[in-house]
Amino acid sequence: MTFSVAVSGATGYAGGEVLRLLSQHPQVDVTTVTAHSSAGTRLGELAPNLRSLADLTVQETSPATLSGHDVVFLALPHGASGPVAAELPEGTLVIDAGADHRLRDPDAWARFYGTEHAGHWPYGLPELITAPFRTGSPTKQREDLAGVSRIAVPGCYPTSAQLALAPGLAAGLLDPEDIVIVAASGTSGAGKATKPHLMASEAMSSMSPYGVGGVHRHTPEMEQGFGDASGESVSVSFTPTLAPMPRGILTTATARIRPGTSEDDLRAAWDAAYDSEPFVHVLPEGQWPTTKSVQGSNHAVMQLALDPHVGRVIVTCAIDNLAKGTAGGAVQSMNIALGLPETTGLDQEGLVP
Amino acid sequence: MTFSVAVSGATGYAGGEVLRLLSQHPQVDVTTVTAHSSAGTRLGELAPNLRSLADLTVQETSPATLSGHDVVFLALPHGASGPVAAELPEGTLVIDAGADHRLRDPDAWARFYGTEHAGHWPYGLPELITAPFRTGSPTKQREDLAGVSRIAVPGCYPTSAQLALAPGLAAGLLDPEDIVIVAASGTSGAGKATKPHLMASEAMSSMSPYGVGGVHRHTPEMEQGFGDASGESVSVSFTPTLAPMPRGILTTATARIRPGTSEDDLRAAWDAAYDSEPFVHVLPEGQWPTTKSVQGSNHAVMQLALDPHVGRVIVTCAIDNLAKGTAGGAVQSMNIALGLPETTGLDQEGLVP
Amino acid sequence: MTFSVAVSGATGYAGGEVLRLLSQHPQVDVTTVTAHSSAGTRLGELAPNLRSLADLTVQETSPATLSGHDVVFLALPHGASGPVAAELPEGTLVIDAGADHRLRDPDAWARFYGTEHAGHWPYGLPELITAPFRTGSPTKQREDLAGVSRIAVPGCYPTSAQLALAPGLAAGLLDPEDIVIVAASGTSGAGKATKPHLMASEAMSSMSPYGVGGVHRHTPEMEQGFGDASGESVSVSFTPTLAPMPRGILTTATARIRPGTSEDDLRAAWDAAYDSEPFVHVLPEGQWPTTKSVQGSNHAVMQLALDPHVGRVIVTCAIDNLAKGTAGGAVQSMNIALGLPETTGLDQEGLVP
Amino acid sequence: MTFSVAVSGATGYAGGEVLRLLSQHPQVDVTTVTAHSSAGTRLGELAPNLRSLADLTVQETSPATLSGHDVVFLALPHGASGPVAAELPEGTLVIDAGADHRLRDPDAWARFYGTEHAGHWPYGLPELITAPFRTGSPTKQREDLAGVSRIAVPGCYPTSAQLALAPGLAAGLLDPEDIVIVAASGTSGAGKATKPHLMASEAMSSMSPYGVGGVHRHTPEMEQGFGDASGESVSVSFTPTLAPMPRGILTTATARIRPGTSEDDLRAAWDAAYDSEPFVHVLPEGQWPTTKSVQGSNHAVMQLALDPHVGRVIVTCAIDNLAKGTAGGAVQSMNIALGLPETTGLDQEGLVP
Repeated sequence: MTFSVAVSGATGYAGGEVLRLLSQHPQVDVTTVTAHSSAGTRLGELAPNLRSLADLTVQETSPATLSGHDVVFLALPHGASGPVAAELPEGTLVIDAGADHRLRDPDAWARFYGTEHAGHWPYGLPELITAPFRTGSPTKQREDLAGVSRIAVPGCYPTSAQLALAPGLAAGLLDPEDIVIVAASGTSGAGKATKPHLMASEAMSSMSPYGVGGVHRHTPEMEQGFGDASGESVSVSFTPTLAPMPRGILTTATARIRPGTSEDDLRAAWDAAYDSEPFVHVLPEGQWPTTKSVQGSNHAVMQLALDPHVGRVIVTCAIDNLAKGTAGGAVQSMNIALGLPETTGLDQEGLVP
Repeated sequence: MTFSVAVSGATGYAGGEVLRLLSQHPQVDVTTVTAHSSAGTRLGELAPNLRSLADLTVQETSPATLSGHDVVFLALPHGASGPVAAELPEGTLVIDAGADHRLRDPDAWARFYGTEHAGHWPYGLPELITAPFRTGSPTKQREDLAGVSRIAVPGCYPTSAQLALAPGLAAGLLDPEDIVIVAASGTSGAGKATKPHLMASEAMSSMSPYGVGGVHRHTPEMEQGFGDASGESVSVSFTPTLAPMPRGILTTATARIRPGTSEDDLRAAWDAAYDSEPFVHVLPEGQWPTTKSVQGSNHAVMQLALDPHVGRVIVTCAIDNLAKGTAGGAVQSMNIALGLPETTGLDQEGLVP
Repeated sequence: MTFSVAVSGATGYAGGEVLRLLSQHPQVDVTTVTAHSSAGTRLGELAPNLRSLADLTVQETSPATLSGHDVVFLALPHGASGPVAAELPEGTLVIDAGADHRLRDPDAWARFYGTEHAGHWPYGLPELITAPFRTGSPTKQREDLAGVSRIAVPGCYPTSAQLALAPGLAAGLLDPEDIVIVAASGTSGAGKATKPHLMASEAMSSMSPYGVGGVHRHTPEMEQGFGDASGESVSVSFTPTLAPMPRGILTTATARIRPGTSEDDLRAAWDAAYDSEPFVHVLPEGQWPTTKSVQGSNHAVMQLALDPHVGRVIVTCAIDNLAKGTAGGAVQSMNIALGLPETTGLDQEGLVP
Repeated sequence: MTFSVAVSGATGYAGGEVLRLLSQHPQVDVTTVTAHSSAGTRLGELAPNLRSLADLTVQETSPATLSGHDVVFLALPHGASGPVAAELPEGTLVIDAGADHRLRDPDAWARFYGTEHAGHWPYGLPELITAPFRTGSPTKQREDLAGVSRIAVPGCYPTSAQLALAPGLAAGLLDPEDIVIVAASGTSGAGKATKPHLMASEAMSSMSPYGVGGVHRHTPEMEQGFGDASGESVSVSFTPTLAPMPRGILTTATARIRPGTSEDDLRAAWDAAYDSEPFVHVLPEGQWPTTKSVQGSNHAVMQLALDPHVGRVIVTCAIDNLAKGTAGGAVQSMNIALGLPETTGLDQEGLVP
C-alpha cells in the first residue's frame, strides 16, 4: 500500500529533510510540495539534491493544496502550523514539525512564544519514557502514537536532551532540580533565512552561544518531558551554542545523582530503556558519540559517565538535528501512526566521513 | 534473489562507503568484511556509523576469507588487489575499487606505479562514451559491463574529468591536445592513514595543491579515457588540490574548441550524451554544480560554458569522491554485471545541507 | 611622524581588514571610519574583534567626513569610489580598494561593469613586473607608486594570478595566448552581504564554481597585467570557485611554455623576479603553498612545476584574499607612496594552525 | 633593551604560537629554537608561516641549547619540562607552557598525571582574582608575577573557565559546590601528533566529547583556581568537547547563585574585576562571545546571564586556546616578569572573518 503525502514548508531545511527521507520510503508517494515565496517554481531549481522529486512544482501552502492526502507534514515557522492544521480533515494524518503543538501548558506557550496556544498533540518521540518507571512497568511515548491522526514532532534539542536523561529520571536515580544542559548545534538548526551571523565567513571556525539564561524556547519542552519521565517538577538550565558544521547536535546533559546511585545502577537504567530500540543506542563503554557517526541517519547515540567527585552523571548524546531531531523522528512517528514497521524507510546509515 | 558479498579493505574510506551503500541495497547480503590490522575486531567498534553491520567481525584479507561469495569488492591499496584477485574463482564477480586493473597500457602502469602490471579489466564507468561518436552510433562503457566477472572501478578524479569532457571529445568538438584540468577534492580522497597535512588543524581553512606537473597517477587514466572517447592521442594537464571538506570533488575541465563550434553544438553534444542517464546530469543553464548537492549520492552534476574570447569550453563537474567517484560507481557497475536494474540500491539523494 | 587615516566602507570585509592591519601600524592613526547603513554606531558593536578601535563612531561616507586626513582608504562597492574620490583633495593619498580605478581601458570597464569609467590610477601591486624584462632591465610596479596620491588596489584574484605568471611572461618563456587559471577563494571574497549560497549551512563542506566562461570581472584586469608583463596581447581563461573556508585564495595558473624552455629557465626567471621581495616567495622545491600558511599575513607563496608531457608550466600561488589580496597590498602601497619602509606594519606572520 | 629568547618544543602548536607572537614583540630576539625529532632542520621547512624566523635551525632540546638566554619558553609534553627546568640557571626567566608546574597539590598531580610532581610555580594568569575579594581589597595574580624567574602558564580550558567564574566566586555570589563547565575546543587543543580522530575527514562537520566524568587533567587546575578565588573548597563538573575548527575555546560555565543575588550584583562583580583589564572583557549586554572574534589575539571575551528560574548564572567565555589560552598568556606573563608594559607585542586584533 502506498500513502500519498504532502509536505509544506518544502523549501526549508526541515521540509527538505522530510523530502530527502521520504524519497527512500517504499510506501510513500510525495505528490504535493508547498511553500510560500517560491510557489510556482520547479522543486529541482530550489533543491537540486532532491533529484527524484525535481519535477514537482511548488504550490502555495494552504488547506486546499494540502487536502486530499493521506499524510501532511507541516514544516512551518512556529505559530504558522496551528491555523493551517485547524483546516485539515480529521482523517488526514497531520505531522507538525514545528513547535505549535508540542507544549501541554498554554501558559508556557504564551510565555515563550507570545501567541495563542494551538493545542497539544501526541508527542512524536517514540523512545521517550513517559510513565514513572518505578511505579509499574515502563511505558514509552510510542504507545500514544499508534493510530493517531495528529503528531507534534519534538524540537531538535529536546529530542537529544530527553533521550539523554529520561532513563535516569524515570528510574528515580537523578535529582530533577539540578539539571544542566549545554548543547552544540550545527548551523542548519538556525534555519535557512539569511542572517549575518549565519554567513559562512562568520560561522566557520567559530563557536558562540545564544539564547542563554533560560530563554530558549526548547527549555519548557525539555521540562515537560523530564517532568513526565520523573513524575516530579523539574528545572533545567539549558544553554545552546552554534557550532561550525552544517548538521548535528551534541548534547552534554548532566544531573546530580540521588545518594547511593552507582555507575552500575545508571548503566542498568539506560540499558533497560534502550536495549531494544532500533534508533537509540548507549555506546559500548569507552566509545564516545560523534555527530558525524549519525549524520543523515535517524540514530541517536549516547554515552554516560559518573563523576563521583561531584556526584553527577554526564550523558553526552549525538543526533542529526534535521534527521532524528526533526524529519527522521517525524517519519518514524508517521510509520507508527500508519501501522507500518517503525523503521520503514529509515535505514540510512550515518554519512562518514 | 540475494547475492552474498564480501568487502575487503572494509575499514578504509572506500570500503566503508561500499558498505554504507550496500546496507541499503535490497538484493545484497554482506556476509564478510576483511581488513588487515583490525582483523578480529567487531565492525561496530571501527565504523560506528554502520549500525546494521555492527555485529560482523573483521577477518583477515585473504583468498580464503573472500572466496565463496557471489561478489567480492576489493578496496585495497594500489598494488595489493592484483595478487588477491588472481586467487579468486572465475565465477565470482570481482570489483576492484583500487587502481590495479584500470590501465590498459603496462608501460603507463610501470611509469606511474612502478610495479608489475596486474592486467586490464572492464572499466566501471557506465556513462563513459567509449567509441567514436562521429563515425557511427555512440556506445557507452556500460555495454562492456553486462555479465562480466571482473570490473575495474575508475579513480575519483578520472570519473569526474571523463564525464565532464568525453561528450565533446566524442563529438569531435574539442582539441584533444589542449586539455587543462584542475580539481579540488575533499580530504577523504587522501585516505584514512594519518598524515600531518591531513590533520584537521592543518587542513581546515586551507587549500593546497599536490601532485602538480603531470605526476598524479590519475593522469594516464584520464588520457586513456579521453583517447577512447576521441579516437585521438590526448594530452592532459592535471592539477589536483586538497579542499577543506570531508567529501566531494569539483572538477574544472577546460579544452580548446575546434573552430566553428558554437555553444549550441556543445550543449547538444552533452545533452545527447547524458539526457537519458539516471546518475549524470547537465544542469539547467544558470545553475552551477555544488559538491554538497551530491554529497553521499551516486549523482554527477555538471554545467558547461563557452568562453568565446579564448575559444575554450569550461565544464565544471561535481561528484562525491567516495560515492559516484568510488563506491557508488562500483555498486552501479555491480548491478549491471549482475543483470539488476542499474539504479538498484542507489536512490540516496544528496545530503543537503 | 604619524599619518591620520580615514577608512570608508569600514564595516565590510575589505575595510575591516584595512583597520585590522592599521591597528598594528606604528605610524598611522585611524581617526575616522565611515560606512552607510551603520552610521552612528560604535565600531565595537559592529566589529567586536577590533578592540583598539572600538570607541570610534561610524560616520556617513562622504567627502566631508573623509576630508582632512593624510590618507583615505576607499573600500566601497564597485562604481561607488569614483564619485567619492573625485571630491577628495589632490594632496590626500587616496587608496581605492575597489575596482573603479584598476582598468586602463574604458571599453573593458564598460564591458565588464556597465557604468562610466572612473579613470586609471597607479596600480598597487608593487612586485608586478611591468616593463618587458627581455628588452632592458626589469622594472617593477612599485616604481610607479612612490610619492603618488592615488592608488588602485588590485583585485584579489588578479593579485595572485599576476604574481604567479608575470615572471615567465616578462622573461618571454610563456605563450601569452594559452593561459588557463582556476582559482579557489574563501567565502569572504564574496563580501559580507547575506546571500543564500553564502550561508554557512550551504557553503560548508561544499565547493562550487561561479562566473565561469570569461565573465568574471577580474579577467580583464589579469589580461591587462599580463599584457604589461609580456608586451604582447594576452588571453586568459579564468574560472573562480568558492571554497569552504573564510579566507584565502589558491590559484592554479598554467601556461604553455615556449619551445626550448627548461625547468631551470623557469625557476631562474621566477627567482630573479622574487628573490629580493619581502612578501612574495617562491617556495623551496618540494614544498607546496597552502592558504593557511599566509592566513592573515601579507605574504604570497608559490611553487612552480614544469609538465614536459604537455609543455606547460603550472604555478600554484596562495595568498590571503583580504590581506595581500586587498588590505595588505593597500597598506604596502601606502607605505611606498608615503616614503615609509615598505614592510612597515605588515610583520604579521600567517596564523597557523 | 632586547631580551634573548629560546623556545623549546618549537615545532608543536604551543611553541609555534609563542614564536608567532614573539615575531611581533619589539623587545625580544628569538635566537634559539629547539625540538626533538626535527633537530637539524631549518625552521622554514617545518613552519612555513613563520617567515621572519625561517632561517633558524632547530636544535635538540637540552639544558645546553637552552642556556644563555634571558628567557626560555618550555612548550613540552607534560612531564618533560620538569627535568629540563631543573637544569636551567636561576637567573633565567623560565616560562613553562606545559602542565608540570601548575598544580600546588602533589597528590592532585599524582592522581591526574601519574608521575612525580615537579613543583609549583607562580601561575601565569594575571587577571585571576586570587585573594578573597570580600575580606579586603581584591588582588590579582599579576602581583605574584613581577620579577619572578619561573612561571607556570595555565591550561587553555582553565584560563577560560577561571576567567569566567572567578569574579563571582571572589565576590561570594556563587555556590562553589555546584559548578558545571562544558567547553568546546578547536582541534589544535589536542596537539600536533597525528591521531585518527583528529584527521580532517573525521573531525570536520563533527562534534564529540572526551575526557568525560571528571577525568580531564584540567579539572584539578580549575578547582585550585576557584578555591583561591572563593576561599572555599570547590567541586567542578567539567566536560570538554572537540569542535570542528582549528582554534578557539568556547566555555559555558554555570554555577548556582547564592540566595538573594541579583543580575546587577553579578554584573557589578564582573565589571569590577575586568573593567580595567586590557585583555579580558565583559561584553555589552546583548552581545555574545564568538571564538572568531578573538582568533589569534590575546583577548578573552565573555557575557553573563542570570537564569532566575533555576537560580544559576551562566557565563560564556571565548578565547583562542593557543593565544590567550597558552602562548599569549605566556608572553603577557613574560612582560610582567621582565617589567615591560603588560601589553607589549600583544596588540594583534582577532582575525575576522
